Amino acid sequence: MEIIFLGTSAGVPTRIRNVTATALKKQDGKAWYLIDCGEGTQHRVMQTPLSLHRLEAVLITHLHGDHCYGLPGLLASASMAGRRHALTIVAPTSIRDYLEAIQATTGLHLTFSLEFVAVEAMDASLRLPDFAVEAVSLSHGVASYGFVFHERGVESRLDTERLDALGVPRGPDWGRLHRGEDVTLGNGTQIRSEDVLLPGRPARKVVIGGDNDDPSRLEAACRGADLLVHEATYTEAVVERLGTDNQHSTAAAVAAFAQRLELPNLILTHFSPRYHDNRQVSPNIDDVEHEARSHYRNTLYLARDLETYRLSRDGEVIRMGRS
Amino acid sequence: MEIIFLGTSAGVPTRIRNVTATALKKQDGKAWYLIDCGEGTQHRVMQTPLSLHRLEAVLITHLHGDHCYGLPGLLASASMAGRRHALTIVAPTSIRDYLEAIQATTGLHLTFSLEFVAVEAMDASLRLPDFAVEAVSLSHGVASYGFVFHERGVESRLDTERLDALGVPRGPDWGRLHRGEDVTLGNGTQIRSEDVLLPGRPARKVVIGGDNDDPSRLEAACRGADLLVHEATYTEAVVERLGTDNQHSTAAAVAAFAQRLELPNLILTHFSPRYHDNRQVSPNIDDVEHEARSHYRNTLYLARDLETYRLSRDGEVIRMGRS
Repeated sequence: MEIIFLGTSAGVPTRIRNVTATALKKQDGKAWYLIDCGEGTQHRVMQTPLSLHRLEAVLITHLHGDHCYGLPGLLASASMAGRRHALTIVAPTSIRDYLEAIQATTGLHLTFSLEFVAVEAMDASLRLPDFAVEAVSLSHGVASYGFVFHERGVESRLDTERLDALGVPRGPDWGRLHRGEDVTLGNGTQIRSEDVLLPGRPARKVVIGGDNDDPSRLEAACRGADLLVHEATYTEAVVERLGTDNQHSTAAAVAAFAQRLELPNLILTHFSPRYHDNRQVSPNIDDVEHEARSHYRNTLYLARDLETYRLSRDGEVIRMGRS
Repeated sequence: MEIIFLGTSAGVPTRIRNVTATALKKQDGKAWYLIDCGEGTQHRVMQTPLSLHRLEAVLITHLHGDHCYGLPGLLASASMAGRRHALTIVAPTSIRDYLEAIQATTGLHLTFSLEFVAVEAMDASLRLPDFAVEAVSLSHGVASYGFVFHERGVESRLDTERLDALGVPRGPDWGRLHRGEDVTLGNGTQIRSEDVLLPGRPARKVVIGGDNDDPSRLEAACRGADLLVHEATYTEAVVERLGTDNQHSTAAAVAAFAQRLELPNLILTHFSPRYHDNRQVSPNIDDVEHEARSHYRNTLYLARDLETYRLSRDGEVIRMGRS
């Protein structure tokens, strides 16, 4: 699996970081999933190998501008590029009012349909082609959600004990069942492939949060997760100066949460533009990293725009560099 | 006066050109005016010396996404930067529905007020601090306008014949009147400064069009203009292939119009992304330039993103390079 950060700044863009957008895809696939879509996301997509034709779904964590003002332009550009197949939009329900008002006032006619999934109404997993997705309600000024991506299509292995118990003789039928075909035995018994297959390895699980001042909301979702991607808008020092009613998390709070749950991998993003990327200026992005490292001992990254991170099958996250 | 192109692509951004936005300012001033605001305009502004605090007015030619999808984010960023003074928005009246729906659905609370001027209702000049602005209705799929900017605050000279006729003796009173102060003569006669001042030179006039398939709509507005900035979305060759119902102008049509009116300066912009900036690929941006030059003999430029053009007091337009 790969995660490509398209924007890692909170609230406003900087010269180096755009506002929030994150792409998720299977490592060898072309299909991809977009989590949040701040203004200028389509410009960032143009700098990657991602294609608007292969975008399977857009998931919006919450309807603040820095997470959704790029959506109308991205849809318009996909239309002008001739996209025809439907696009799934998973978001708080008022995304419909937002998009419909923009379509009505700006003459935006899409060449494809939008299939809305109201995140408030998701009480079970939503099955997308590559992932089953759950939504978790977070704590922010407006309704905000985190998304839990459960890998689908994990390579399977035959449940040989069950095959023996069912009396399926070793041979070509085992191969057919392994390939997903159902078979009928000589005695007329029907054997369904899905009944004799086991996952070849645990499915990977990635949690991508929206804006949130209470990481513990993600505690159940993070149990057994390979990776948490979460905002770390501020450091403790800045929050002490600004007050705590900022509706965002500090690096310390997220890192301590991830440590408590012994999460193997944590990527922080959505940094306040007050943290300069120039390390000669204070406060800077290193302050965020130092604070997080002082609370978390496993693999930690601070996301940068256009960087790809790869989550391997054995659960290791590696920074692959810029697209 | 200076014109800074913030986006010169039609419909969708390219890797080199953003969608439409143009900045206009007096050469030595900080105040500026934004004509159109496609997605990513605020990102372009960050690459110039322009400040969102000194933006006096936004003028939107028409409500297609590539001309207005950057406005919500630009307003949000101006707010987060602490702007307090009102911003004038000159645009088709439905801009209010567009912005109010976005504000309502995305929790966008501005720290400053918006003063809307409905372009349909402008039947005389609108007085902005540096320019008097007229709107001209154009021909496009939706209501689209061109804006005529008449320079204000031209250096004045004393009308000496009138001063003599009014019996104002040469001396300190002439200086006061030249500086804009009214004076009362020894005999009690009041002399108003504005009655004895003449413009020191003709006020400059710049016409900036929106999307438009009929340049002749701008004929009256362009009489005596120093500069026309107009879209040239296609070349004739491409229109012949695509059909003519594209609601945009060709380079040939705009250039022939400017030649017929003997306009001294023409800048073309809003190029279809099918014209590559790589001159090894066909069709490319040189095709647009060649077509325009074959119809127009005065000063011609094809705008590029982040380039500044300076209109001197004697009516010459010079490309100043990138911001």
